[in-house]
Amino acid sequence: MSDEQNLEYLFHPQSIAVAGVSTDSTKINVGRRYVHNLLDCGFKGKVYPINPNGGEVDGLKIFPSIQDIPDKVDHVVSAIPARYALQLVKDCATRGVKAIQFFTAGFSEMGTDEGRQLELDVVNTARRNGIRVIGPNCMGLYCPRTGLSFGLNFPKQSGSVGLIAQSGGNSICCLREATTRGVYFSKVISYGNAADLNESDFLEYLAYDSETEIITAYIEGVRDISRFIAVLKNAARVKPVIILKAGATEIGSRTAASHTGAMAGSSRIWASLLRQAGAIQVDSLEEIIDIALLLSRIPYSHGKNIAVIGAGGGVTVQAADDCSKAGLDLPAVPAQVKQRLKDIYITDVGRIFENPLDIEPVAKSETIITTAKVIAECDRFDMLIMHVVFESGVADRSNTVRLYIDSILDLKDKIDKPVVVVLHYYITDENKLLALEMYKRLYEAGFAVYPSVRRAASAINKFVQYHQRHRTSES
Amino acid sequence: MSDEQNLEYLFHPQSIAVAGVSTDSTKINVGRRYVHNLLDCGFKGKVYPINPNGGEVDGLKIFPSIQDIPDKVDHVVSAIPARYALQLVKDCATRGVKAIQFFTAGFSEMGTDEGRQLELDVVNTARRNGIRVIGPNCMGLYCPRTGLSFGLNFPKQSGSVGLIAQSGGNSICCLREATTRGVYFSKVISYGNAADLNESDFLEYLAYDSETEIITAYIEGVRDISRFIAVLKNAARVKPVIILKAGATEIGSRTAASHTGAMAGSSRIWASLLRQAGAIQVDSLEEIIDIALLLSRIPYSHGKNIAVIGAGGGVTVQAADDCSKAGLDLPAVPAQVKQRLKDIYITDVGRIFENPLDIEPVAKSETIITTAKVIAECDRFDMLIMHVVFESGVADRSNTVRLYIDSILDLKDKIDKPVVVVLHYYITDENKLLALEMYKRLYEAGFAVYPSVRRAASAINKFVQYHQRHRTSES
Repeated sequence: MSDEQNLEYLFHPQSIAVAGVSTDSTKINVGRRYVHNLLDCGFKGKVYPINPNGGEVDGLKIFPSIQDIPDKVDHVVSAIPARYALQLVKDCATRGVKAIQFFTAGFSEMGTDEGRQLELDVVNTARRNGIRVIGPNCMGLYCPRTGLSFGLNFPKQSGSVGLIAQSGGNSICCLREATTRGVYFSKVISYGNAADLNESDFLEYLAYDSETEIITAYIEGVRDISRFIAVLKNAARVKPVIILKAGATEIGSRTAASHTGAMAGSSRIWASLLRQAGAIQVDSLEEIIDIALLLSRIPYSHGKNIAVIGAGGGVTVQAADDCSKAGLDLPAVPAQVKQRLKDIYITDVGRIFENPLDIEPVAKSETIITTAKVIAECDRFDMLIMHVVFESGVADRSNTVRLYIDSILDLKDKIDKPVVVVLHYYITDENKLLALEMYKRLYEAGFAVYPSVRRAASAINKFVQYHQRHRTSES
Repeated sequence: MSDEQNLEYLFHPQSIAVAGVSTDSTKINVGRRYVHNLLDCGFKGKVYPINPNGGEVDGLKIFPSIQDIPDKVDHVVSAIPARYALQLVKDCATRGVKAIQFFTAGFSEMGTDEGRQLELDVVNTARRNGIRVIGPNCMGLYCPRTGLSFGLNFPKQSGSVGLIAQSGGNSICCLREATTRGVYFSKVISYGNAADLNESDFLEYLAYDSETEIITAYIEGVRDISRFIAVLKNAARVKPVIILKAGATEIGSRTAASHTGAMAGSSRIWASLLRQAGAIQVDSLEEIIDIALLLSRIPYSHGKNIAVIGAGGGVTVQAADDCSKAGLDLPAVPAQVKQRLKDIYITDVGRIFENPLDIEPVAKSETIITTAKVIAECDRFDMLIMHVVFESGVADRSNTVRLYIDSILDLKDKIDKPVVVVLHYYITDENKLLALEMYKRLYEAGFAVYPSVRRAASAINKFVQYHQRHRTSES
């Protein structure tokens, strides 16, 4: 990788100036929030708030301009109106600034000649002075290891997932979803209009970044399709790349143009290009995390022969449909395994000892654990889905739910096949709260947990396909 | 309708005996729960618990057998083991019982000759004595108007939706989902193995039932396909019929056979039969409620030209994709309407005045209300989707969320086009709790609320299709 391509320095600034910090605490001010969020995330370098009126914020002195800062400034966050953007770049040029991230919007995404020209002027002036531009119209960078952050209460914990997102809001939704599932990030990059540094630059960087093991992306449009596909092919060769390509429909594409000035292009062409380049394609932000979760928690995959264990007749029928529709195989339970299972239970009334298994009602933790062990020992199955319905028939079911989940937690070191957990049908307020608690216990213990069999099955299928393709291309 | 077909009496028993009630409170006993749930739902008639050992439960005397009950018994709930089922029927025959509902399982769904024979014997003995059988292997009947219930904390409020469900667990999940969305039921019928009264009988009844305006169904297999389709055609002619046909895949079908002994059949044949019969087909329990919600809250539909109003660039692009993929039309905003919108806002930086509209950040309730009014006044649009993202960019967003939802609530009588609300991306624990509260406020005010644009768009599309077809077939 050339120095030009190595963007590592972006994530290690010694000092950050934030332009557009107001001291008026009665109003929401984005600049002030950036300062606050950097301090909150434990940024180790220096933070310099900037405002022509001076003052103080979060115990930090506010400087009237970049020129007034006594020390070196590596990185600048701009939260000032677009009409001051060019002057800011010129000021930065005199101070050896390496990168400016523009939260500032009002450029090419406006669809006006003025907006496009201003964006061009800003980028050209910056590049002439050795400054790289992130954005404009973006949230910027999050890197928990160095304390870089653009959001409130972003986790301080580092992880193995890198995220590139053209939309700042979506990068935040993705990060929040990840956090509630136990997925953590190496870097998150919200890059907006991609006027200078673009999706290909960041994708190339994450492909080489040793801290990043899984690449995820929300993309509306790309600047240079052939370069992007080439970079993607290289990236997908070394690590999984999960991509949500938005603006896939005609109206979505038109909307993307208004949002980030992106040319989104036809969805069918995109789907085919991404598939050929080896990307894992998804349809929603949640699905990005659904798949990253499996990839980060389960080291490898043997195949897509799944055993489904749960309780409840109707949900078991639907689990069969959902797994089949997702493309998974549900092999039948061999006769001798079926007999071993029947021996565990007093009666088979109201139970199904086929795959999917319906083993309600379960009274003892030992029963659940033995069932899972018997299934896991059967060669026919590569992976287990264990699902827990929260809503109850005739009586309160919270104790049964707790017992079931305690048993799953107990399984952790007792079987050597991956167990994917589904917690579903938590509908009443009480069950929603109970589910929150159970989710946390399970993902903290290392389990991949899903809110429906459908989402789990779809994620498993894409996970298995990725490993199969990867094995084939390696051999 | 013949007397034979009129099942109204099933929902008006003067007295119910529950067989299989244990006084041992250390164990979960289904019979005892049935007694409890009937009393809890306010059943006005008499409840007679039965157990050979006698005793007392919930302040009621337990009778050793049906014969020992001094008064007339209209309806019997059986929670005893299958081996006693035939004797129970014989006992009931001597007491003028009109219907027995068997929670009891262990019949044809076991896949054994013994199970099938026992089911046949039970039904034949019952029918010879003028007794109808519900089930076996089912939860039974819920009718809030008469206080019939089989579940814990089922709502006492009556509604316009009837539900037929082959799975008891799924009927409960459906009912819980409905309750959290503000949808209420006239009758819920969980009918299990359908050995005597089956899906066609109940469907025919609900078609004629004046209390039921919308019919919903979870079906694994049917006893007599040609009768079912004929009954369905008649029902769909007079009211909407929403059907989730489970066991649609090969493995799902195999599982359905184990669950309720149902012959599920090929999914493609089913899809085509149901479409021709005029049913609204859905894929999940949630989707049943998604569509019933619209049908019960919005009196009619003009068409599928939708305006989407919300905030956030990325989610707006995805909203466009989701609506388009669902089959909705998103007409462009006419130039003069666009100008009226721009006049409301100080700047259009960071906003999109196309459809879908991205109007973040919103500071004033008046702005939101005026925006919605301007859009609603435009002839080009039939319906509005207003969506609210809970997760925040740089700062806490709960006040903005509250303001947005207050504004939507204020809209209620100010515009004359339907407004469908989407609350989405509530991911952190705090936002999940906030969403619960906001959901309730909105649905209590009469709004149809969805957790994603995708689900709202799909429901709207099926809702519009239903009305278009219905108008065509009437003319």
